[in-house]
Amino acid sequence: MTTDDLKKLLENVKNGNASIDDAAKKIIDLPFEDIDIAMLDHHRSIRTGQPEVIYGEGKSIDMLIPIVNAFIEKNENMLITRLNDSKAKQLETISDKLVYNKIASTMKFEPKSLPLTESSVCVLSAGTSDLPIVEEAVETLAILGNRYTKIVDVGVAGIHRLFSKIEIIREAKVVIVVAGMEGAIASVVGGLVSAPIIAVPTSIGYGSNLQGITTLMAMLTSCSPNVTVVNIDNGFGAAYFASIVNHI
Amino acid sequence: MTTDDLKKLLENVKNGNASIDDAAKKIIDLPFEDIDIAMLDHHRSIRTGQPEVIYGEGKSIDMLIPIVNAFIEKNENMLITRLNDSKAKQLETISDKLVYNKIASTMKFEPKSLPLTESSVCVLSAGTSDLPIVEEAVETLAILGNRYTKIVDVGVAGIHRLFSKIEIIREAKVVIVVAGMEGAIASVVGGLVSAPIIAVPTSIGYGSNLQGITTLMAMLTSCSPNVTVVNIDNGFGAAYFASIVNHI
Amino acid sequence: MTTDDLKKLLENVKNGNASIDDAAKKIIDLPFEDIDIAMLDHHRSIRTGQPEVIYGEGKSIDMLIPIVNAFIEKNENMLITRLNDSKAKQLETISDKLVYNKIASTMKFEPKSLPLTESSVCVLSAGTSDLPIVEEAVETLAILGNRYTKIVDVGVAGIHRLFSKIEIIREAKVVIVVAGMEGAIASVVGGLVSAPIIAVPTSIGYGSNLQGITTLMAMLTSCSPNVTVVNIDNGFGAAYFASIVNHI
Amino acid sequence: MTTDDLKKLLENVKNGNASIDDAAKKIIDLPFEDIDIAMLDHHRSIRTGQPEVIYGEGKSIDMLIPIVNAFIEKNENMLITRLNDSKAKQLETISDKLVYNKIASTMKFEPKSLPLTESSVCVLSAGTSDLPIVEEAVETLAILGNRYTKIVDVGVAGIHRLFSKIEIIREAKVVIVVAGMEGAIASVVGGLVSAPIIAVPTSIGYGSNLQGITTLMAMLTSCSPNVTVVNIDNGFGAAYFASIVNHI
Amino acid sequence: MTTDDLKKLLENVKNGNASIDDAAKKIIDLPFEDIDIAMLDHHRSIRTGQPEVIYGEGKSIDMLIPIVNAFIEKNENMLITRLNDSKAKQLETISDKLVYNKIASTMKFEPKSLPLTESSVCVLSAGTSDLPIVEEAVETLAILGNRYTKIVDVGVAGIHRLFSKIEIIREAKVVIVVAGMEGAIASVVGGLVSAPIIAVPTSIGYGSNLQGITTLMAMLTSCSPNVTVVNIDNGFGAAYFASIVNHI
Amino acid sequence: MTTDDLKKLLENVKNGNASIDDAAKKIIDLPFEDIDIAMLDHHRSIRTGQPEVIYGEGKSIDMLIPIVNAFIEKNENMLITRLNDSKAKQLETISDKLVYNKIASTMKFEPKSLPLTESSVCVLSAGTSDLPIVEEAVETLAILGNRYTKIVDVGVAGIHRLFSKIEIIREAKVVIVVAGMEGAIASVVGGLVSAPIIAVPTSIGYGSNLQGITTLMAMLTSCSPNVTVVNIDNGFGAAYFASIVNHI
Amino acid sequence: MTTDDLKKLLENVKNGNASIDDAAKKIIDLPFEDIDIAMLDHHRSIRTGQPEVIYGEGKSIDMLIPIVNAFIEKNENMLITRLNDSKAKQLETISDKLVYNKIASTMKFEPKSLPLTESSVCVLSAGTSDLPIVEEAVETLAILGNRYTKIVDVGVAGIHRLFSKIEIIREAKVVIVVAGMEGAIASVVGGLVSAPIIAVPTSIGYGSNLQGITTLMAMLTSCSPNVTVVNIDNGFGAAYFASIVNHI
Amino acid sequence: MTTDDLKKLLENVKNGNASIDDAAKKIIDLPFEDIDIAMLDHHRSIRTGQPEVIYGEGKSIDMLIPIVNAFIEKNENMLITRLNDSKAKQLETISDKLVYNKIASTMKFEPKSLPLTESSVCVLSAGTSDLPIVEEAVETLAILGNRYTKIVDVGVAGIHRLFSKIEIIREAKVVIVVAGMEGAIASVVGGLVSAPIIAVPTSIGYGSNLQGITTLMAMLTSCSPNVTVVNIDNGFGAAYFASIVNHI
Repeated sequence: MTTDDLKKLLENVKNGNASIDDAAKKIIDLPFEDIDIAMLDHHRSIRTGQPEVIYGEGKSIDMLIPIVNAFIEKNENMLITRLNDSKAKQLETISDKLVYNKIASTMKFEPKSLPLTESSVCVLSAGTSDLPIVEEAVETLAILGNRYTKIVDVGVAGIHRLFSKIEIIREAKVVIVVAGMEGAIASVVGGLVSAPIIAVPTSIGYGSNLQGITTLMAMLTSCSPNVTVVNIDNGFGAAYFASIVNHI
Repeated sequence: MTTDDLKKLLENVKNGNASIDDAAKKIIDLPFEDIDIAMLDHHRSIRTGQPEVIYGEGKSIDMLIPIVNAFIEKNENMLITRLNDSKAKQLETISDKLVYNKIASTMKFEPKSLPLTESSVCVLSAGTSDLPIVEEAVETLAILGNRYTKIVDVGVAGIHRLFSKIEIIREAKVVIVVAGMEGAIASVVGGLVSAPIIAVPTSIGYGSNLQGITTLMAMLTSCSPNVTVVNIDNGFGAAYFASIVNHI
Repeated sequence: MTTDDLKKLLENVKNGNASIDDAAKKIIDLPFEDIDIAMLDHHRSIRTGQPEVIYGEGKSIDMLIPIVNAFIEKNENMLITRLNDSKAKQLETISDKLVYNKIASTMKFEPKSLPLTESSVCVLSAGTSDLPIVEEAVETLAILGNRYTKIVDVGVAGIHRLFSKIEIIREAKVVIVVAGMEGAIASVVGGLVSAPIIAVPTSIGYGSNLQGITTLMAMLTSCSPNVTVVNIDNGFGAAYFASIVNHI
Repeated sequence: MTTDDLKKLLENVKNGNASIDDAAKKIIDLPFEDIDIAMLDHHRSIRTGQPEVIYGEGKSIDMLIPIVNAFIEKNENMLITRLNDSKAKQLETISDKLVYNKIASTMKFEPKSLPLTESSVCVLSAGTSDLPIVEEAVETLAILGNRYTKIVDVGVAGIHRLFSKIEIIREAKVVIVVAGMEGAIASVVGGLVSAPIIAVPTSIGYGSNLQGITTLMAMLTSCSPNVTVVNIDNGFGAAYFASIVNHI
Repeated sequence: MTTDDLKKLLENVKNGNASIDDAAKKIIDLPFEDIDIAMLDHHRSIRTGQPEVIYGEGKSIDMLIPIVNAFIEKNENMLITRLNDSKAKQLETISDKLVYNKIASTMKFEPKSLPLTESSVCVLSAGTSDLPIVEEAVETLAILGNRYTKIVDVGVAGIHRLFSKIEIIREAKVVIVVAGMEGAIASVVGGLVSAPIIAVPTSIGYGSNLQGITTLMAMLTSCSPNVTVVNIDNGFGAAYFASIVNHI
Repeated sequence: MTTDDLKKLLENVKNGNASIDDAAKKIIDLPFEDIDIAMLDHHRSIRTGQPEVIYGEGKSIDMLIPIVNAFIEKNENMLITRLNDSKAKQLETISDKLVYNKIASTMKFEPKSLPLTESSVCVLSAGTSDLPIVEEAVETLAILGNRYTKIVDVGVAGIHRLFSKIEIIREAKVVIVVAGMEGAIASVVGGLVSAPIIAVPTSIGYGSNLQGITTLMAMLTSCSPNVTVVNIDNGFGAAYFASIVNHI
Repeated sequence: MTTDDLKKLLENVKNGNASIDDAAKKIIDLPFEDIDIAMLDHHRSIRTGQPEVIYGEGKSIDMLIPIVNAFIEKNENMLITRLNDSKAKQLETISDKLVYNKIASTMKFEPKSLPLTESSVCVLSAGTSDLPIVEEAVETLAILGNRYTKIVDVGVAGIHRLFSKIEIIREAKVVIVVAGMEGAIASVVGGLVSAPIIAVPTSIGYGSNLQGITTLMAMLTSCSPNVTVVNIDNGFGAAYFASIVNHI
Repeated sequence: MTTDDLKKLLENVKNGNASIDDAAKKIIDLPFEDIDIAMLDHHRSIRTGQPEVIYGEGKSIDMLIPIVNAFIEKNENMLITRLNDSKAKQLETISDKLVYNKIASTMKFEPKSLPLTESSVCVLSAGTSDLPIVEEAVETLAILGNRYTKIVDVGVAGIHRLFSKIEIIREAKVVIVVAGMEGAIASVVGGLVSAPIIAVPTSIGYGSNLQGITTLMAMLTSCSPNVTVVNIDNGFGAAYFASIVNHI
């Protein structure tokens, strides 16, 4: 409800076209609707074709089926993340328009693709083991309408591989760096490009890696100031944030 | 050295205008010069009026004096962060154009201010104790040429204070949220605005706060996906990153 | 044994109505009986219709069957928590009056419901994944004779959902807040209501959530002073404590 | 603003006693004022004689002086916690009605004492070293109008000392247990009384005590279900929560 | 080899009764034989009827079979700890003199029982869930020839149960306290008896219990000075140590 | 009070030699006195010449002076641990019979030395930096009437130094091993002697030593089963426990 | 590409034997090839018969088959580490020249063994449970062409076993010490030999061992300065490093 | 004492040139001297001009003076590490041949320099703040007779600086990498050179750096296999190890 809408309602009250009780009820709801408006800015854009992203982990197949059906009925874009194989198989029986990315553990329903951004997001990773997180990021970027490039296996132990891709990286408006172990590549890339970098620590490694906590902490104490960090293995979050910046 | 430059060099070799030895030497140096060029893109922009930011902690007064003098001689913008009072007092004797912000623990030399961005960065904090970090962020934003707004003491324990400022927050292109304790405000603001949010955990709190580690971890596990995080008390890093996004 | 009882006993000794040996024996037992009496206050109330709550985890089906039979024989209320499906199925064969709540992982035997309190406890949670803990709390509240309300999925990332329920929350005498991730909702609710709040961190989240430790620590360092905290996933403990306060 | 107030405003609009613009403006502010009303319930009670509690740590003397003056001018109750000696001495020069408790590190201004509760809160501690936290709790209880009892040095290594006080403890409506080291007393008291218990871990101990983290964790994993926990050394928080329950 | 033995050897060298080469060889071996002798003191006592204790975890059935056979052939006492069911079943086929304790996860071969000590070790535990560790301790004590008493389920949440057993506990020469959660019982018993107490933290508990680390740390920071601690779930270690003290 | 004492009291009641009121009062105190009896076993022995040990840290000079005076008046042995230099100097003015050990940070008043044990406790340490903890242990052993030997600087990096002392170590009834860093010496000595070993981790080391936590954890996971552990830097606790065992 | 190769290329350009475009393309690749030269030192040696080592964990069988085939086709040495049984069985069907070490979880293809070093590396371990890591180290040493000795089960709890092997250990040019629990053996060996020692903490132990973190930390804080440390269970890394030193 | 020496001694006994008592005494010392021989290899080399390195932290000036005097009297090389300014000033009064390196916090007495190695050790560091550790390493290398190169401030945030030094780094036989923050440079250098690399994490950084623990853990989980790690800030240990390898 805009201020204009409100003034119209008040005029209707004045004119007797709206009863005081009805108007009071509407207005009492207003604070939340007003906040809703704020939220609706966000929601509206979603309803105009942008996908909702659903976190699949911990949701039972019984919870997922009605959600998926709702999107199919409304013919709206949707992405489910952290969806394991067995649940995916059950969901795939609903519609053949549901596309499962096994590596990413994501499933999408994308009846009407969003227009692609001019600029692009570069997703790069240190090792092949980081691929699931890379794919989650890439699927998120895609359904949110972002052009993207994907560069895999450019870890710092063979830094020339990274350098051979540096021009491609520099073309991106935002860079997502996915890495496990010591996560050194985030700092190195941070020193090589001037774009904002979102680092995603992964739980790849063992022992002193501490299930990704070491990578997380190391990335946060990076010596490159253009690096911010999201939670361990959070490819979706990095892509969501990158998409906001890429759409600026 | 561009590909064209290289082809020219090769033609000179072919034509005998360049000796093989000289060409070989030039080419052998190429990789590092090439990287240097990349870095120089960054450096050059700095040299064209953008300030260098110097981390003051751990640098003795003997190290700081020549640095400061170099900037004064070159008449270039500069910001020193994490500069304590006693060092600041000694540096202030060098020139009265050095401006110390005691709360921020920053000192700037800003002979030629950068043009301000149209859009702005909003820096908000949960409590008055977070002020030093807010000020560090604000000083960094300012010298990097960003318009900004500053909102202090809007912690979630009295959430109406936050709501009364929500329109100001929504006008920002980027939001920096500075908070200690449980850092809840980052998630709350993340749910209220659609701009990218950079969360700065602070070491404000005691006991289970663990010198900011709890705040850091809590912000990383935020339920709002438009939140990324920088290191504890890293107001500079948040502002540097925000400035990059704000200049897009 | 009261002081009067004791004096009577001593008089009986004096009068020869009690032998010294018998009196000595009684008095020697006194400290423990005295403590027992204290405990019996508690036990007695339990025996007068209040349920005993049994922690099911780590108890084998062989240990559980006689316990359950004892309650059925005595026709007394009982609640088992942390009871997994397979054990539940085996117990259900004993009596069809045993009611299993699969989400809560609780089983109750409630032949004679306690009278409900006038006042009520509100249990609210940030996300749907917290539901098992919410249900454990609710089952505990119910069998302990508490009126309660249950509000699910009002996390701070969409804070208007919380506000739309605020009146219901304010009606409660005690509020239990169940949340994983950063647990911000405990602080937010703490700022919105003046009732005592018991926060239950859950192990929902990943990476920096540290299996609920981050949520726990964040809730403990909450900026709202009307918040106390129980152990991770401890829906029973929160409800037990809330019930005590609700019965005041 | 109540619903009745709103209906009156709408009637004024209808009757032409209020302009549409003015009414719109008032209503637009409503959501936050509405939340404010909620907050004001809380604030109002404070303004009606209840003290505000100010966290003194990290506030400079320059910040504290105007705060203290404001309360003196308004003649309202006030308590400052975590106030060190040197700041206290400077504040004491303002008025001789400011009373400093050196052990508690609190200062109060209490021109008009609140009426005392009928019921009382018992504060007990394991060792004499916990005294500062006990005193902080006691000062908070007192200014919030609670009757209280204080029992010091009843640690479990000499459990008979605790038993000799058990009747006094059982008379309390709420019990605050303050303990460092292994914090065993919280569980022991939890087993002996049926009142709600708020445990305050203290940073007393060394080595494996981990500055109170061990005590905190131990109390949270207590085997007594009527125990909730607040942050390390948080005597104020425990007392604030206990006061809410004690006033029910 | 004593100094006297050495002098004899040297005299033999002098007298020509021992060749220089043989004497040199003997002396060169001396340091290690000397150490071996020390070890043999220990080994010898083992060989004279005391059981060897074998840590079963991580040893495959292929490794265990020859070990067991060796003891059967030599007709010597032996105890295997941390032996799971499936391995136990395979070993039981070797001999019907192998006795498996399923709760303790121990298997013993005890052809010739050691004489029992006059004094006894008391093993007590806070909860029924600690039983496996109690049983491991008890089996170890038994095969090492110790008289013992076993008291289960005397946790501090119902401290009168502990007091009703206090005389039995006081009769022991050494006390082993097995407890999970906050481990408070170690301190309480430490205050009630003057015997040396060995505390065994168990991994019973959840969340803030941190797989027994909290219990471990809490026991180490116990306020009773007659308490020492062994590793989490280390019933064997506690019993081994207790046996040494009990045999003094 | 023994059962006999109680019977006598009852007889006095019967005979009229004690009033019912007086007897009732005495008996009411009994439960705690009864527990006191247990405690008195301990206390009595203390009153018969054994020292009380007072933990000096966190006790102000105002608290310490009356304690010290009480012991001087009663002419009873006493040991204060963790007493820093400045407090020690103030206490020394009370009496020249107060003996301060600056390295141990202990002060003793020992008017009537206890008879020494036949057997002895060996205190050995890995490095000279562990000396303060060694001295605290030694002072505690001495005042509790234990013969002891002290071996310093036999760390495993030069293991022959340890071997040269092995006979002395083997003569002890109990061994206290004090070590920082990796604490390896506890395991090594554990393998060389069959006596009970009490390991005291110290906070000597830096970085990965984690203020002694690493040493503590390493000692707890020692491969020698005759090792138990006390808290970091807890020389007193180790000695107190060792004294109990040494007096068996 | 060596400088000579480059000069040849330039001469070819000069002579018209190479087109400018082709040469430019080659040279553009050069910086990375140049770095490659550095890397090629490593790679070249690999291509001249040295094995590549592939980390098998996290690589699916679909990823491993083509890798293995590539090495078989090129007839080049190769070692796969962290290869579990089921993958190994599938790979073994490719060629009977693939040799699986079940304990080490490694598979090698070694058509042309490297010449053995004169000097040797000694791999020793504290317990039999460390064997998998020992075997991983040994397999790595072998395929990299190192002579080695292997000593198992010489833990410090029976230090004479270690001493009986000391001469063999002293003959090695580099020593790898593999140990779990408290890792004391690294320090002990560090004090006995003057060779460089690489310590490998293993995750053997339980409770306070913290999955090897305690061992890791303890080894890092070792009192012997000739000890460096690699990650937990990293037998490959230790052997790789040892091989470099052994080939000096 | 070699076997030959021993045989000579025995012959002397046989011939009467040595008394049995004297020989026995010598031989009794032998086991330890034998071990000493091992140690003496080390010691002897030290006595032949190599310095002893003394850890200055925690040693009082009273302990240091006699140590220093002993070396001056014997005219032997010596290095004290971790020596603060005030102690250094007091020691400097003993002799003007004592040279203090204020940045390194080391003091050396080097009357007769060792011959320099042909090969060299390269010490490089990420930032200027790591200089104290670099200097400690360099002083240790120097007094142990190593040629070395020192490269400072080549952090990965400006990786071209590192590349411009790569040839110098590649010339070293051993490389020591000193870095704080995320320690990425260790992995990067590990990928660029084939020499053994010893990484020294420093406590440079703040917040998530965790006083160097993050750097330590990150270096241990490095993706480059030619990297081993020493304790935080342990420049001495790295240099000592590097010197051993450099002298091979």
